[in-house]
Amino acid sequence: MRVSLVSTGDEILLGEVLDTNASYAASLLADHGFSIGRHYTVGDNLDELISVFKSALSEADAVICCGGLGPTRDDITAEAAAATSAVDLVVNQDVLEDLKNKFSMLGLKWTDNQERQARIPEGAQVLSNPLGTAPGIIVQMQPAWLFCLPGPPREYKPMLAGPVLAKLIEIRNSRSDSKNTGVRMLRLFGKGEGLVENALGDMAASIPGLSVGFRAAFPEIQIKLRAQGATSQDVETILDQAELAAREKLGDLIFASGDTSLPAALLDLLQAKNMTLAVAESCTGGLVGKLLTDVPGSSATFLLSMVTYINEMKAKLLGVTAETLEHDGAVSAACSKEMAEGVRRLSGADISLAITGIAGPDGGTDDKPVGTVHFAISDKTGTETKLRSFGFRNREYVRRLSAYTALALVRRRLLEPPAGAE
Amino acid sequence: MRVSLVSTGDEILLGEVLDTNASYAASLLADHGFSIGRHYTVGDNLDELISVFKSALSEADAVICCGGLGPTRDDITAEAAAATSAVDLVVNQDVLEDLKNKFSMLGLKWTDNQERQARIPEGAQVLSNPLGTAPGIIVQMQPAWLFCLPGPPREYKPMLAGPVLAKLIEIRNSRSDSKNTGVRMLRLFGKGEGLVENALGDMAASIPGLSVGFRAAFPEIQIKLRAQGATSQDVETILDQAELAAREKLGDLIFASGDTSLPAALLDLLQAKNMTLAVAESCTGGLVGKLLTDVPGSSATFLLSMVTYINEMKAKLLGVTAETLEHDGAVSAACSKEMAEGVRRLSGADISLAITGIAGPDGGTDDKPVGTVHFAISDKTGTETKLRSFGFRNREYVRRLSAYTALALVRRRLLEPPAGAE
Repeated sequence: MRVSLVSTGDEILLGEVLDTNASYAASLLADHGFSIGRHYTVGDNLDELISVFKSALSEADAVICCGGLGPTRDDITAEAAAATSAVDLVVNQDVLEDLKNKFSMLGLKWTDNQERQARIPEGAQVLSNPLGTAPGIIVQMQPAWLFCLPGPPREYKPMLAGPVLAKLIEIRNSRSDSKNTGVRMLRLFGKGEGLVENALGDMAASIPGLSVGFRAAFPEIQIKLRAQGATSQDVETILDQAELAAREKLGDLIFASGDTSLPAALLDLLQAKNMTLAVAESCTGGLVGKLLTDVPGSSATFLLSMVTYINEMKAKLLGVTAETLEHDGAVSAACSKEMAEGVRRLSGADISLAITGIAGPDGGTDDKPVGTVHFAISDKTGTETKLRSFGFRNREYVRRLSAYTALALVRRRLLEPPAGAE
Repeated sequence: MRVSLVSTGDEILLGEVLDTNASYAASLLADHGFSIGRHYTVGDNLDELISVFKSALSEADAVICCGGLGPTRDDITAEAAAATSAVDLVVNQDVLEDLKNKFSMLGLKWTDNQERQARIPEGAQVLSNPLGTAPGIIVQMQPAWLFCLPGPPREYKPMLAGPVLAKLIEIRNSRSDSKNTGVRMLRLFGKGEGLVENALGDMAASIPGLSVGFRAAFPEIQIKLRAQGATSQDVETILDQAELAAREKLGDLIFASGDTSLPAALLDLLQAKNMTLAVAESCTGGLVGKLLTDVPGSSATFLLSMVTYINEMKAKLLGVTAETLEHDGAVSAACSKEMAEGVRRLSGADISLAITGIAGPDGGTDDKPVGTVHFAISDKTGTETKLRSFGFRNREYVRRLSAYTALALVRRRLLEPPAGAE
């Protein structure tokens, strides 16, 4: 069953707002086994929108339109839907009453233009919008269906993932091409997309019903396993088999499946081992702390990050020696070692991490080009250092890769502790 | 002159990759006075692409297609362009030679499928691609023009902003609707989009040739001034007049025009005053340090961020007193004050900043709901504290708003120093 997407709104058309709804919808629907036809983006213009609706409804089984349901005069989606299906636009009394209730509950003043949001194509079905005012609209135009949803992502996404997806599945089930589908995402850091793809090779060919997709979500790689089967149990079996095969090939590089980020996976591991972490950051400037504290509840294991951005602070607060700074420089294995040991001493953490490098664009030398980054991991068994040369694309690239590498190094140390560490 | 955009590729269609090229192109072209028709997204399917090319060429003066020019069999854009204009696809010998040279210079092995990238619709113009292999293609189909560009953003964007934009302007200049246009962006933090819009009121109406757009680029607001005039000097005069009027209404809330971020504007101001900054972060977890060090060269003024994520570290390292932690708690004006004074003492910075609050989703109480954040700014004249209640949407919302508020408070202190501060 083929679904096409229409995004309306001058702010999307003119590139002022990035259209995240369309990629969200496409990805969600593809995960549920729908084939995606086309996306169209069109401005706040009635004739244009009607013309796009007609094109889309002629090439797809269902069309999902996003935006243009608000109270202002440039909100023209309901009118375009009515014109496309050659019916009148009528004020729906239930919707009107619901709108007035919402306004009074929120203490907002009712103005007459709000009534626009209650105008629905005659005979259309109304989809309630618990997180906003404008309801969604479903218009059946045999053989195709048109779904109109409000544009704000916090209203659009739950309406799509909830009632609209359910309705699409119901429509599909009433047709002959019905199948059970499922999806699972594995997340990996430390190997490029091409190498991951090679490592998994012909996995999809050897497991019937499986298809495999790859996505570089810098700096991680996401492996998307999609399964089709006769029953939902078959689908789960296929996904389990595929996950097992992928983990056999890629081992601990896969840090999680589903929504868990690398920082969250590391914090889970620390918590399971009842260990605390402290960090000393130079070139990442606070990014490692920021990534760890993106995870709610991180204060159970993450104690401290010392962002010692200048040499004087490394010396004064972390105890990096004058000799190291003079002889090896701040970007050196010796400095990273003293930083990691310093922050572990200050914080009393069980394990600590230090990062010092050159994020660019300036500051590189022949010996230490931009992208040179030293890491140290310190625990009661001692301190281990690593050097990585990331090259230079831009500052954000070097810094993000450094932060992820650092977290992955701590994770590796926890998964394969040296003798005597536990 | 109306331009429409086509994006090709299953990865875009299926929502696996966010299409940033389309919004980049729309924004750039709108800034240069082109009107944007529609965007279309279509998968790697020849018939679909031909059908979309025909639709787009019938409604626009120029169509810019992105993607599908690579060496693999799903790269079908050149073939679709040839079919749309009913000409043959021919191997262009200059392009072929250029491709072979690039491969040999990069030490890559030449394979026969690479020759696909040299196949060009007969009579089409070739656009060289200095950052990649596949060249761009320009096909003139009176009265409309079709531009095909490679999909990788680092190849697409410079080709669009360089030769394609120049060609579009040349085409427009050869027509009657030629005008000089210009754009300037003002950046503001500390007032919502609606209030900014109200404050500027009818500015566009009172300055002929000016149009004004607003964009919420959370947490900042961007004001886009667009001008049209007979000469480029007229355009500059209109933009200067508009910027002056906006600054009169909004004052120092406008922190920069153009590419300068709020952290960069603050670092510039610190440097101009020859002052250094240190930070103590709790709920932002390193984000303030990260934002400051996004700016190259920040080490001239930014000394240190202490990410003291747990109470024990606030006490041990920053000297927050046991009495404050027991009596007022870590989320309090008293704690923020001691944190700011502590980090200033430790670092020797001229001015310091502290943030402590509840980012959620958990940890809120009736007295201190999620979104409660205390700030302190300390310099030699003393320490000032502020309380903000941001409410709760999500953790990232509270944290990002906290970090920007903190930077804006330091900026305000520097712009309006208390008596005796300088």
